[in-house]
Amino acid sequence: MKKKLLNAFIPALIVSIASSAVLANITMDERTIPTPVGISSEMANVIEKRVHPPVMPVPESTEAWLAFQSQFNMAGIELAQKGMDRLGVTYEAKSYAGVDTFFVTPKELSPEYQGKWLIHLHGGAFVFGGGESALREAAWIAGGLGAQVISIDYRKPPLHPFPAALEDTVAVWKELMKTQKPEATAIFGTSAGGNLTLATVLKLQQMGLPTPGAIYAGTPVTDLKLTSDSWYTMKGLDPLGQREGLIQATIDLYADGEGLANPLLSPIYAEIEDFPPTLFLTGTRDLLLSDTVRMHRLLRSADVETLLHVYDGQSHADYMAGLLADVPESDDAIREIGLFFNKHLK
Amino acid sequence: MKKKLLNAFIPALIVSIASSAVLANITMDERTIPTPVGISSEMANVIEKRVHPPVMPVPESTEAWLAFQSQFNMAGIELAQKGMDRLGVTYEAKSYAGVDTFFVTPKELSPEYQGKWLIHLHGGAFVFGGGESALREAAWIAGGLGAQVISIDYRKPPLHPFPAALEDTVAVWKELMKTQKPEATAIFGTSAGGNLTLATVLKLQQMGLPTPGAIYAGTPVTDLKLTSDSWYTMKGLDPLGQREGLIQATIDLYADGEGLANPLLSPIYAEIEDFPPTLFLTGTRDLLLSDTVRMHRLLRSADVETLLHVYDGQSHADYMAGLLADVPESDDAIREIGLFFNKHLK
Repeated sequence: MKKKLLNAFIPALIVSIASSAVLANITMDERTIPTPVGISSEMANVIEKRVHPPVMPVPESTEAWLAFQSQFNMAGIELAQKGMDRLGVTYEAKSYAGVDTFFVTPKELSPEYQGKWLIHLHGGAFVFGGGESALREAAWIAGGLGAQVISIDYRKPPLHPFPAALEDTVAVWKELMKTQKPEATAIFGTSAGGNLTLATVLKLQQMGLPTPGAIYAGTPVTDLKLTSDSWYTMKGLDPLGQREGLIQATIDLYADGEGLANPLLSPIYAEIEDFPPTLFLTGTRDLLLSDTVRMHRLLRSADVETLLHVYDGQSHADYMAGLLADVPESDDAIREIGLFFNKHLK
Repeated sequence: MKKKLLNAFIPALIVSIASSAVLANITMDERTIPTPVGISSEMANVIEKRVHPPVMPVPESTEAWLAFQSQFNMAGIELAQKGMDRLGVTYEAKSYAGVDTFFVTPKELSPEYQGKWLIHLHGGAFVFGGGESALREAAWIAGGLGAQVISIDYRKPPLHPFPAALEDTVAVWKELMKTQKPEATAIFGTSAGGNLTLATVLKLQQMGLPTPGAIYAGTPVTDLKLTSDSWYTMKGLDPLGQREGLIQATIDLYADGEGLANPLLSPIYAEIEDFPPTLFLTGTRDLLLSDTVRMHRLLRSADVETLLHVYDGQSHADYMAGLLADVPESDDAIREIGLFFNKHLK
């Protein structure tokens, strides 16, 4: 047995420092991944039964983007309606501060959310997920927490790139602050909605406005400039697909030429001094696992009160499965969000 | 564009419930993984320069295991010595409560650790990492925190399988409790040492003995019975290697016929009612990512005070690289451990 092998085995990390071989790129072999053992049968059912979509083409004109966007949202609208029926959640479309919004109301309002509205920013790669399809996460949270939610149908590309979405979220925030205290208010969202949640806080700080009492950022994309590790490691395992192609195109469409290192686009590049208490959710099979844990560490480095919950075997935003079925991990996520909001919202 | 594709794209998780296609196993294609963008240049240096060892054969006799074990530990002893020199940490080998231990002392004792000893349980797949090679993590923590550490060189297979190690850890605990309060004492360890840290607490609870004020379980193996997801997803990316073969053999050697669902072997099967505050560390490229996050969730489900920190791009126990070099992520881990101990140790 050569000493080099011995060295490399258990203390691989430590030996490496003295090693001279360079292996910047690591090749991972093809593999077959069984259903995770560490998840509920209900979540296993979700994972086993879904279809992984093929790579989809990038629309080549504004018209093609608009048509694609509209088709996309139709599927989400149907799911949102099913979820709202299941959870007994209702909504009203309103123009609020000049912005399209949905005011979402649970069947039963929990005592801690009486007279209080939470703000929701939907996901969908900055381009998709608008209209009533925004109501999927809003309904899941409204029903799960027993809370009233304002879901912002912020303006989106291709017609309204950055910073239109943030202008809308800030406008709604300012309007709501006329009747509600910031420390009593949470903003939340998943994926691009997690990005916008973080970016909205940064924008409010830039403007010298008060910030929310707590936020929940579900598996947020935090680095639009560089491709975080899990985009490579989880490719093909997470049904979200891949960054190359359509998703990168949505990022470019959203940024519209603005430098991607702008923290309002990529919150990971923010200089954090203080920040509201932040809850992060993600999964071990999530393409945005790396984006999420990087942001968690950035906030921790500034001593922000922040919690990270990582669900085993879950791909992008799988914790939201509770919209359409009873899934223990979804109940657990709701419980964590509720505990966090109850602790930090005044 | 077929509706099925639209459905499956953004809300893949949600559509899946209604889908009829079954894909229990997912095939991940071969891929090349570049150095993560979300890490320090120092950690990138660690990752890029190390050699991934080939699969090693399983020893076929007690004598072969003993020889392998001894060779293995030699490499670790050398690294421990380098680390202790670098950090100015010293040690004394002692028999304490009839158990082989190392009393590890930092160059400078921090005020909060005056008159207080922390207990360390080393890693090494239950079989390796003994003798002075145990001092790697002990030295890193002693030097990093400025704390005195008793590192237990617990008995190991092939001569001493389960429950010998736990008998040793409990014996040391009971002896130390004659001069130190449990709520002022932390137990910690990484990998198999994380498993033993968790199992020692469970054993103390079974015996009706007081438990530590806080524990830190670094990327612990918590499920010896079933193979958690990240053993599949991270295979070939984490230089630790693979579960099949040598590592599974060490598990079998350690369990020695005891059922692997015994929580003292696999803490994930414990029924948790209360548990000391627990800090978990792991990485997004860690073969034990799933074991770690599963245990974090189990403790959370019982309302235990527990924090999870996941380092981007790190494989198994990479956070410990600070033993031999200045690595910001290692400093960050030390900072988190220190904050956690300071908060919870009385």
